[in-house]
Amino acid sequence: MKVILDCDPGHDDAVAIILAASGISPLEIVGITTVAGNVQVEKNTLNALKVCDVIGLDHVPVVQGATRPLVKEAEIAEEIHGETGLDGPQLPNEPSRQAIDQHAVDFIIEKLLQADEPITLVPTGPLTNIALALVKEPKIKQNIQEIVLMGGGTFGNWTPAAEFNIYVDAEAAKIVFESGIPVRMFGLDVTHQVLATTETVDALRKMGNPVSGFVSDLLTFFIQAYQDHFDFPGGPIHDACTIIHLIDPDIFTFEHVHVAIETNGEHTYGMTVVDRLGVTGQEPNTYFATTLDHEKFWSVFKEAMVSYGERSE
Amino acid sequence: MKVILDCDPGHDDAVAIILAASGISPLEIVGITTVAGNVQVEKNTLNALKVCDVIGLDHVPVVQGATRPLVKEAEIAEEIHGETGLDGPQLPNEPSRQAIDQHAVDFIIEKLLQADEPITLVPTGPLTNIALALVKEPKIKQNIQEIVLMGGGTFGNWTPAAEFNIYVDAEAAKIVFESGIPVRMFGLDVTHQVLATTETVDALRKMGNPVSGFVSDLLTFFIQAYQDHFDFPGGPIHDACTIIHLIDPDIFTFEHVHVAIETNGEHTYGMTVVDRLGVTGQEPNTYFATTLDHEKFWSVFKEAMVSYGERSE
Amino acid sequence: MKVILDCDPGHDDAVAIILAASGISPLEIVGITTVAGNVQVEKNTLNALKVCDVIGLDHVPVVQGATRPLVKEAEIAEEIHGETGLDGPQLPNEPSRQAIDQHAVDFIIEKLLQADEPITLVPTGPLTNIALALVKEPKIKQNIQEIVLMGGGTFGNWTPAAEFNIYVDAEAAKIVFESGIPVRMFGLDVTHQVLATTETVDALRKMGNPVSGFVSDLLTFFIQAYQDHFDFPGGPIHDACTIIHLIDPDIFTFEHVHVAIETNGEHTYGMTVVDRLGVTGQEPNTYFATTLDHEKFWSVFKEAMVSYGERSE
Amino acid sequence: MKVILDCDPGHDDAVAIILAASGISPLEIVGITTVAGNVQVEKNTLNALKVCDVIGLDHVPVVQGATRPLVKEAEIAEEIHGETGLDGPQLPNEPSRQAIDQHAVDFIIEKLLQADEPITLVPTGPLTNIALALVKEPKIKQNIQEIVLMGGGTFGNWTPAAEFNIYVDAEAAKIVFESGIPVRMFGLDVTHQVLATTETVDALRKMGNPVSGFVSDLLTFFIQAYQDHFDFPGGPIHDACTIIHLIDPDIFTFEHVHVAIETNGEHTYGMTVVDRLGVTGQEPNTYFATTLDHEKFWSVFKEAMVSYGERSE
Ligand SMILES: [Ca+2]
Ligand SMILES: [Ca+2]
Ligand SMILES: [Ca+2]
Ligand SMILES: [Ca+2]
Repeated sequence: MKVILDCDPGHDDAVAIILAASGISPLEIVGITTVAGNVQVEKNTLNALKVCDVIGLDHVPVVQGATRPLVKEAEIAEEIHGETGLDGPQLPNEPSRQAIDQHAVDFIIEKLLQADEPITLVPTGPLTNIALALVKEPKIKQNIQEIVLMGGGTFGNWTPAAEFNIYVDAEAAKIVFESGIPVRMFGLDVTHQVLATTETVDALRKMGNPVSGFVSDLLTFFIQAYQDHFDFPGGPIHDACTIIHLIDPDIFTFEHVHVAIETNGEHTYGMTVVDRLGVTGQEPNTYFATTLDHEKFWSVFKEAMVSYGERSE
Repeated sequence: MKVILDCDPGHDDAVAIILAASGISPLEIVGITTVAGNVQVEKNTLNALKVCDVIGLDHVPVVQGATRPLVKEAEIAEEIHGETGLDGPQLPNEPSRQAIDQHAVDFIIEKLLQADEPITLVPTGPLTNIALALVKEPKIKQNIQEIVLMGGGTFGNWTPAAEFNIYVDAEAAKIVFESGIPVRMFGLDVTHQVLATTETVDALRKMGNPVSGFVSDLLTFFIQAYQDHFDFPGGPIHDACTIIHLIDPDIFTFEHVHVAIETNGEHTYGMTVVDRLGVTGQEPNTYFATTLDHEKFWSVFKEAMVSYGERSE
Repeated sequence: MKVILDCDPGHDDAVAIILAASGISPLEIVGITTVAGNVQVEKNTLNALKVCDVIGLDHVPVVQGATRPLVKEAEIAEEIHGETGLDGPQLPNEPSRQAIDQHAVDFIIEKLLQADEPITLVPTGPLTNIALALVKEPKIKQNIQEIVLMGGGTFGNWTPAAEFNIYVDAEAAKIVFESGIPVRMFGLDVTHQVLATTETVDALRKMGNPVSGFVSDLLTFFIQAYQDHFDFPGGPIHDACTIIHLIDPDIFTFEHVHVAIETNGEHTYGMTVVDRLGVTGQEPNTYFATTLDHEKFWSVFKEAMVSYGERSE
Repeated sequence: MKVILDCDPGHDDAVAIILAASGISPLEIVGITTVAGNVQVEKNTLNALKVCDVIGLDHVPVVQGATRPLVKEAEIAEEIHGETGLDGPQLPNEPSRQAIDQHAVDFIIEKLLQADEPITLVPTGPLTNIALALVKEPKIKQNIQEIVLMGGGTFGNWTPAAEFNIYVDAEAAKIVFESGIPVRMFGLDVTHQVLATTETVDALRKMGNPVSGFVSDLLTFFIQAYQDHFDFPGGPIHDACTIIHLIDPDIFTFEHVHVAIETNGEHTYGMTVVDRLGVTGQEPNTYFATTLDHEKFWSVFKEAMVSYGERSE
């Protein structure tokens, strides 16, 4: 299955990339596109390139995208991801290669128009690139298999009503959810159920391969940030849910519902309004993830990490 | 403890009145005021008077209030409560007495200004009367002990984001929640946990007193309406939560949080935006009910019903 | 013709009262009700009472109304009207009488329900009292002849889109304009054409009666405020337009149009959206004043002032 | 002076192109880009190509742009411009050439990044292309001389508050007006002062060159549409104002003011909120055209048309 990972790495984006490129993944990564989100897009691009270096993902193009949201001013989340956007692990100052010289929006359009089979888009940051691509070239719709995204929820983390990715660019989200393309949505309702803890970190460290070490460093920082900022007992690896689902579609449970994006409210800008009771009478446009099989989730997660090599004793 | 019950009976409002007037209740009901809500205010007033007849509550004044929401046009909920607002039980065409000749807003203001001790307001319908009283005579604030209300939630039933009572008059709700008076809020998060079922109905019928028979008829209709309309396995007796809590304050668990009222959104008008993660930095203004001790709840409920008399065999 | 003057005096409100009570006025003033607006309602009430003292209007009840807008927080306009709300003229510290002990909303409702002929309401401040009366007792509608108000316009003075009176309580304005009662609206489009200048002041001073002297003091202050604040060549005596029209209905020209009240916009809260081109297809609800016969206006104005007595030489 | 004409021809857009390409114009047209507006973008592109054919403008690239607004659904104005978007004159079914194979957004970005001198953008349709270019490549800002646009006003024509071009894509307008680039705005306040009448048509017809004949056919249709739809005594050649100003900058009078774009209001979506009284305290971002020298305007207009050739008798 061909995918484009559209992201703002970001600790959990990094984990998503690593899972997608792991030995157990059925995904063919057409490209990694970056977007302004957790931090500025230039930092997100650097982080994507460095993550590729760590896991040896040399053949996949990294492409930089939107530097700002569609209509609103930019918002950043340094309090969660640190100044670099990927604080925690030791990383080289410079990646071994550069992003290719194309705008992510054009990359996405080009790959979709050229595709011999539909491609799945996996946005784990604000939806600016995807929305711009849809507005610039509506014909790409027919070549998108599904948009499997992390964002939103029936409650928020950036405001009481809005999750960060959607809040940053609610107009982009509105374009995506109203596009007619099937959306599969991993919102806070389900991602807050997937907490990495110190046990996760320990298990990763014991695996003893460089990638699992890198992930354990990432998660150590991330767990602490969620502890400090939200008083959470672990770090919800939000973005990773998308890839775990694509690796094994039997892990998560979904409701097929209508989701509208609020772009107006005084207290609710950026909310994903999920019609779980079916009171609007609107056609479902989204597969909304509600629960998961925890055991299977962590088993797949572990397998993927182990696929990067085991301690040689 | 002195209370004013401000309501739109309404099946669950009726249950709330019956609990408040029961033999185990510590509440002194200063008055029952009515408001446009589930159905037109005239019907709600008739229903309040008839419920008083059924339980012999002759000394408590019933006072009619607002015929319409503050700013918005009226909305009614006949699909849940039937054409009379209290379909189900056999009721006389006319009550034995009439509402007193005063507007509920003036009644509320007068009773509060005259009170020798603070009065608790218990609104279980739209907040129009309470808001009008606060705008007309802000001095009443100091004599209000607390506003213990049914309304709102982190999700809705009338729209995906808004519960009926708040949706009907979100501007009134905004006035109430921003008033500085402590609010205790029973929203859908908790009231959907309190489902009357056919077992409840059977138990009530077995008690064999006329009031429990009346309540069993009410609940039979209500359970069916929730089954038909929302595919629920029981009827959430929303409004009754307020009184059960006032009878026994140890049953429900609360979070002290900030709640804002959305009056603007395209998809979120009438939402109670509950800041459970504390991300807004705003001072808490609401005790938000989250869970309950089910056993205690139903035990108090049963005791109250039994207090109306037991089968004499 | 019976009128209730609902106001927040206010320099131009004071002029309106003085015109309405003048020797050439056909108006029977049923009462003067006050509302929070230019300054706090208590100050506005004091000012109304003092203006009555200056002109000997002893028999007309002054009644205090709303202390705050319906939904929004209060706004005041001290930069235009000074700290007392009526800076400029020398006034006694205390008026000779007090407001009657009733809420303006109840006074308005009572007078309308008792009226043997329809009464014209003349609001020259925020529309809070009128809106509250309409919500509390919708039956009053049938006894209101017309609502002749100062407020709104196709442009604003408090924001680029909103005029002060409407901005202060746009929700109240929405209730009034959507009530079905005919509205006659003197907005900034026309009131900015009616500028009192130093010539007006001189002419008043020359008349030599105490009332014209008082008005000349009022206008001197007001002209200066508009000079300082808006760089205007005179002081637009907004509120006076309503009474001049009621004295002589041939002075102003009107368009019969639909007016909607914006209560949502980010930059347009409190705007009166006037459909002059008829593009909405909505039924007209408002007579919107567009132009006037200047000569006639000032001639009526002068006559009214002269009616308070001429210099005895 | 280099310009890019970004348009949705459209009768008045066509006139603008013809003026810009006339013998008296100092403008170097870098390209004509089209956008969805009056009618679908494909029709607008065809119309642009055909207008080029009529005036022999063969060397200027025509480039097709956005097929839809940024966030909102498309709106069209067939009642004003007819089904083709340019009803009235006889036109060949097919133009002699095609639009170049590039997206207008990329054309605009490329030309600006390559420019050796700043380019003036002249949008006379919805601002979608310009906004998309600014979001996709913010670096273009430094190479934009000015944005000279037709749109908005202190009143509307599509709604009472909003003019068509801004209403169609208010989010795009917001991006443009908030971009920091100087905007020169010809809104309805001034364009409604520039009415083509049957005298204009007659004068054009008398000139006897094919272009003036074409324009007279255009205006005949347009005048009738404004007569039928708005009961106007002439056809306001809105878009032409931009070019007449660029040909002779002494014709129009401007105020330097702040303009905000309303994207939220219930009745005011798409309004350009013009702070003419300076009450917001915000820095001016726009030169807002208020009046014009009519004689000079029509003299330049006529000269431009005559430059296409005079009757040879
Ligand atoms: Ca992310
Ligand atoms: Ca109720
Ligand atoms: Ca006033
Ligand atoms: Ca145009």
